[in-house]
Amino acid sequence: MGHSVSDGGQKPESDVASQHQMENVRSVYKVGLPPRKKLTKEFTDTVKETFFADDPLRHFRDQPKRKKIMLGLQAFFPVLDWGRQYNLKKFKGDLIAGLTIASLCIPQDIGYAKLANLDPQYGLYSSFVPPLIYSVMGSSRDIAIGPVAVVSLLLGTLLRNEIDPQKNKEEYLRLAFTATFFAGITQAALGCLRLGFLIDFLSHAAIVGFMGGAAITIALQQLKGLLGINNFTKKTDIISVMRSVWGEVHHGWNWETIIIGISFLAFLLLAKYIGKKNKKFFWVPAIAPLISVILATFFVYITRADKKGVQIVRKIRKGVNPSSVDQIHFTGSYAAKGFRIGVVAGMVALTEAVAIGRTFAAMKDYQLDGNKELVALGTMNVIGSMTSCYVATGSFSRSAVNYMAGCQTAVSNMIMSLVVFLTLEVITPLFKYTPNAILASIIISAVIGLLDYEAALLIWKIDKLDFIACMGAFFGVVFASVEIGLLISVAISFAKLLLQVTRPRIALLGNLPGTTIYRNVEQYPETIQVPGFLIVRVDSAIYFSNSNYVKERILRWLTDEEDKLKENQLPRIEFLIVEMSPVIDIDTSGIHAIEDLYKSLRKRDIQLVLANPGPVVMDKLVASKFTDVIGHDKIFLTVGEAVLTCAPKSSLAA
Amino acid sequence: MGHSVSDGGQKPESDVASQHQMENVRSVYKVGLPPRKKLTKEFTDTVKETFFADDPLRHFRDQPKRKKIMLGLQAFFPVLDWGRQYNLKKFKGDLIAGLTIASLCIPQDIGYAKLANLDPQYGLYSSFVPPLIYSVMGSSRDIAIGPVAVVSLLLGTLLRNEIDPQKNKEEYLRLAFTATFFAGITQAALGCLRLGFLIDFLSHAAIVGFMGGAAITIALQQLKGLLGINNFTKKTDIISVMRSVWGEVHHGWNWETIIIGISFLAFLLLAKYIGKKNKKFFWVPAIAPLISVILATFFVYITRADKKGVQIVRKIRKGVNPSSVDQIHFTGSYAAKGFRIGVVAGMVALTEAVAIGRTFAAMKDYQLDGNKELVALGTMNVIGSMTSCYVATGSFSRSAVNYMAGCQTAVSNMIMSLVVFLTLEVITPLFKYTPNAILASIIISAVIGLLDYEAALLIWKIDKLDFIACMGAFFGVVFASVEIGLLISVAISFAKLLLQVTRPRIALLGNLPGTTIYRNVEQYPETIQVPGFLIVRVDSAIYFSNSNYVKERILRWLTDEEDKLKENQLPRIEFLIVEMSPVIDIDTSGIHAIEDLYKSLRKRDIQLVLANPGPVVMDKLVASKFTDVIGHDKIFLTVGEAVLTCAPKSSLAA
Repeated sequence: MGHSVSDGGQKPESDVASQHQMENVRSVYKVGLPPRKKLTKEFTDTVKETFFADDPLRHFRDQPKRKKIMLGLQAFFPVLDWGRQYNLKKFKGDLIAGLTIASLCIPQDIGYAKLANLDPQYGLYSSFVPPLIYSVMGSSRDIAIGPVAVVSLLLGTLLRNEIDPQKNKEEYLRLAFTATFFAGITQAALGCLRLGFLIDFLSHAAIVGFMGGAAITIALQQLKGLLGINNFTKKTDIISVMRSVWGEVHHGWNWETIIIGISFLAFLLLAKYIGKKNKKFFWVPAIAPLISVILATFFVYITRADKKGVQIVRKIRKGVNPSSVDQIHFTGSYAAKGFRIGVVAGMVALTEAVAIGRTFAAMKDYQLDGNKELVALGTMNVIGSMTSCYVATGSFSRSAVNYMAGCQTAVSNMIMSLVVFLTLEVITPLFKYTPNAILASIIISAVIGLLDYEAALLIWKIDKLDFIACMGAFFGVVFASVEIGLLISVAISFAKLLLQVTRPRIALLGNLPGTTIYRNVEQYPETIQVPGFLIVRVDSAIYFSNSNYVKERILRWLTDEEDKLKENQLPRIEFLIVEMSPVIDIDTSGIHAIEDLYKSLRKRDIQLVLANPGPVVMDKLVASKFTDVIGHDKIFLTVGEAVLTCAPKSSLAA
Repeated sequence: MGHSVSDGGQKPESDVASQHQMENVRSVYKVGLPPRKKLTKEFTDTVKETFFADDPLRHFRDQPKRKKIMLGLQAFFPVLDWGRQYNLKKFKGDLIAGLTIASLCIPQDIGYAKLANLDPQYGLYSSFVPPLIYSVMGSSRDIAIGPVAVVSLLLGTLLRNEIDPQKNKEEYLRLAFTATFFAGITQAALGCLRLGFLIDFLSHAAIVGFMGGAAITIALQQLKGLLGINNFTKKTDIISVMRSVWGEVHHGWNWETIIIGISFLAFLLLAKYIGKKNKKFFWVPAIAPLISVILATFFVYITRADKKGVQIVRKIRKGVNPSSVDQIHFTGSYAAKGFRIGVVAGMVALTEAVAIGRTFAAMKDYQLDGNKELVALGTMNVIGSMTSCYVATGSFSRSAVNYMAGCQTAVSNMIMSLVVFLTLEVITPLFKYTPNAILASIIISAVIGLLDYEAALLIWKIDKLDFIACMGAFFGVVFASVEIGLLISVAISFAKLLLQVTRPRIALLGNLPGTTIYRNVEQYPETIQVPGFLIVRVDSAIYFSNSNYVKERILRWLTDEEDKLKENQLPRIEFLIVEMSPVIDIDTSGIHAIEDLYKSLRKRDIQLVLANPGPVVMDKLVASKFTDVIGHDKIFLTVGEAVLTCAPKSSLAA
């Protein structure tokens, strides 16, 4: 019984009965008013849904105390959870993946450190400690941790605004560690305070634009290394860079450097193309950079091209990360500066890591606890800042390689970390003759992947405002600076949200002939307007920011409609039905607006009818006594019912 | 034909036919995809709805050129419109109202000027020129223009932060005119740029709290005059003021002053009570202040109480407004300071004027063009700043008196202005012996009306978050300062908007037995969940700020439900229906979230079904090719239809 709906399609003879039932619906169902929640309950519910929406303690419920402690430990160190099911088969996958991403990360790290105006070894340091920490605390199985291009560039730009890295190398380095420390603190604090949702305010569109712009900027910066230019601008905008490049064309370009750079760039791009064409060859672009480095270094070493002006890495410190605890500014003006830079760099780093984590979690269908991730990332950067690392996060390109190489758990990060450790201990002196041009080629071929024009095209197709945010971020980064681009994208995203709550859509509804369904007349041209009625739907919560607009829009619609009817000598409007289904909330300003609407309608001798107010709205309408004012019989479950009930009284039925 | 709905209630025999029609609905109606608008059209539509929502040029359509010019002039000078229907009967009403508000405004003006740390005549100046300008340019018929308590206090506080009014009186005055000039420019610019909707961002709740706090602060400031204290704190927070009051209790209080102040305050409050009890005696509280001033002045003059320490006005300049064009700073650092102060004071003044305008327009059912009002208010302040006035706006108390005295048009403002002119020219010297205590009493009795505890109580009942905003503003003003209170209220209001777009409600739907209606199970406990289905409704646009939350919330609900079903060994869920009616918009992040949802569901072998996506959402689903991915047959007009169509395939029907 009861489910006349679900079997209605099969037994037509029961339809008549159900139709009779439907006729009675009017008297059977009233618009529900949910039982009033107690204030404390309402408050805790709101707090829970805002900060603990993912119900992080659900696993702890109804568990013995011993188990709870174990679960608590596992929450902070997921390795205790997945470690117990770890086996040789998984290790095989992780080993291959770990070796692959290590071969990719070593040359990238050296290059990215240059983007942050740091010596090459700091890139390698940042690929040693942070991945180790993450692999015991993080819950993503596919992310590859280490320095990334965009954060390196951003950090480099922000730090250089404060201290010149050439003139005052020591202080610059100290500020870098300070910023890294505060980036980690920011990340961990956001996680602990369960404010991880804040990073959602950087929209997908803004990220696409920002990453694309950063890719262009980073590639442009590489022209210094690729063309062997000595006097290169310190600004990052395209105009300054191009002026710098062309200004040096006659005496600044070094042709040997260009030949090395261009030929290896072609090789790397070819490798990338092969990897893209056939997924089986994913390892080709992954190991191409290391091969390039080895070949180029060997080539320079035997030809001593460095004596012909080919710039080389020259010195790179051997050995693992030294401690840097005593170098962090915990107080003073540099601490404040480091804090400001750290917050920005930390947030951008987060955005990248969380986006990667989510993407791969969706592909393998496992859940990620965003806030726990933040704590893991934060801890890893705090510890990193004390062991001579700069801000590390998840890398798009290396994570994709990690995934394709068949990684199973965070053990692949440990393997990578181990390889980097061996490199630092044993091989680093060999990088002495590595030409800068090859590093530039590697960076260019890496950041090209961030230029996601297909995503931009899709954004254009789907949402024009999103596209503006995307382009704003892109051009902001390319023509001004990384910070300006970031600021523009956040501003446009916020403006978009505010626009939605300021100017909600209000739709005119009509009846689909032969049904009791009422739909937007614009979307369904076959709908018919019911004489004597004006039916509108408010497509948003009614808040102070839009309450006046909503009221005035409805009244204006009414005036327009009345003018039209008068012209055609049709019967006048007697009922204004407001379909409230999408009105999920209303505040005091909204209640006042509806009261004003009601007053204005009374002056025009039109009755206000509400259809399907939701639980919250109903609650507030009752609390404000507005239901008494318009009459409880003016509130219906559906528009169809409202029309059915009101129509006989209208002039139409006469 | 067609309207089987509206006559369905009368002819039951036709129901069977209509029911058969309904059965066919599934094949008849597809979810509509509105014709794609051209990009330029879409763009202009959005701009129009955002900035020209009220269609200000509608009257100009299809009019001859001559008429258009006339209409254009009338748009800027509404006096040309209503002036033509002006008659003696209307003038009678305006005359009485004008005289009444004049008698109220003169003593108030003198007191308010003190709040702004200005000499008394500047208050009167501001009640002479601005009302005249407004009466030819403004479109509200009931507003009474002049200086008001809250803006005077705000302006005084902000100006004192820059320049000490005692030590550097000249510069202080110049900065006041500069701020007034920029307040006017801000107001006019907002109107011209059609950004009037920005003031909607100050919510009703915030205004109630802010006004209440300002009332307390202003009343506390009056203790100086009322108790005759000489050394009074310059801060406005309650703690500093109370310390100042009690610190001076032994040698600072002047008992003659207190007797005058308290007795007249009692008289004024009694008059207010009489006016409130019986609307016919509205004029009693209106003229009581002037009577008090006359009596008290006369009393002081004959007793020479000023020699016993009763502070008096002492000097007040005779004659009308001198020009102050040359005193305004148009460049330099004071111009920048004046600009900053002007913007804040101008916005607060606007909020008050627009709130008054709207209230009375709703009571008499006439339309106000918000943006035109801004231009009128702005012009009046710009001209005011050049004729020695400070920021004027609509006054709550005087506008109410104006309305009750039967004002018909803005002519009542002209009458008031004329009376103020005569006062300035003839009577001002007589105010020399007016005791400051009486002015304090008048201000206290005036601002008491701003303490709207009933509104606060209603806000508490309706919306707890609104109440927090209200209290935040109130305590911010009382315990810190006017600016802090303003800042707090704006911040809380914005946070509330962002909360809504970050954590939208997602409702679980059930079937109302015997109907095809699906409603929130929390609101309608009688609903039944259909086996094999999970039906959820997303109650918000899906944007980047909430897309992840929406996806994860739905998946978590699914997991919970599946666990429950497994425990009770019930058939598993095969279909997830997402009711999209309230989803008025979706952006690229939202599309990605739905795609991720679809992928996760596929892994669990559950089919995703969409019900009633709106025009914009449908458009974007098609543009992103997501409709092809899930299949066009998975998108239904209603949840009922979706259940009907899917059910036979489900295990339940087998």
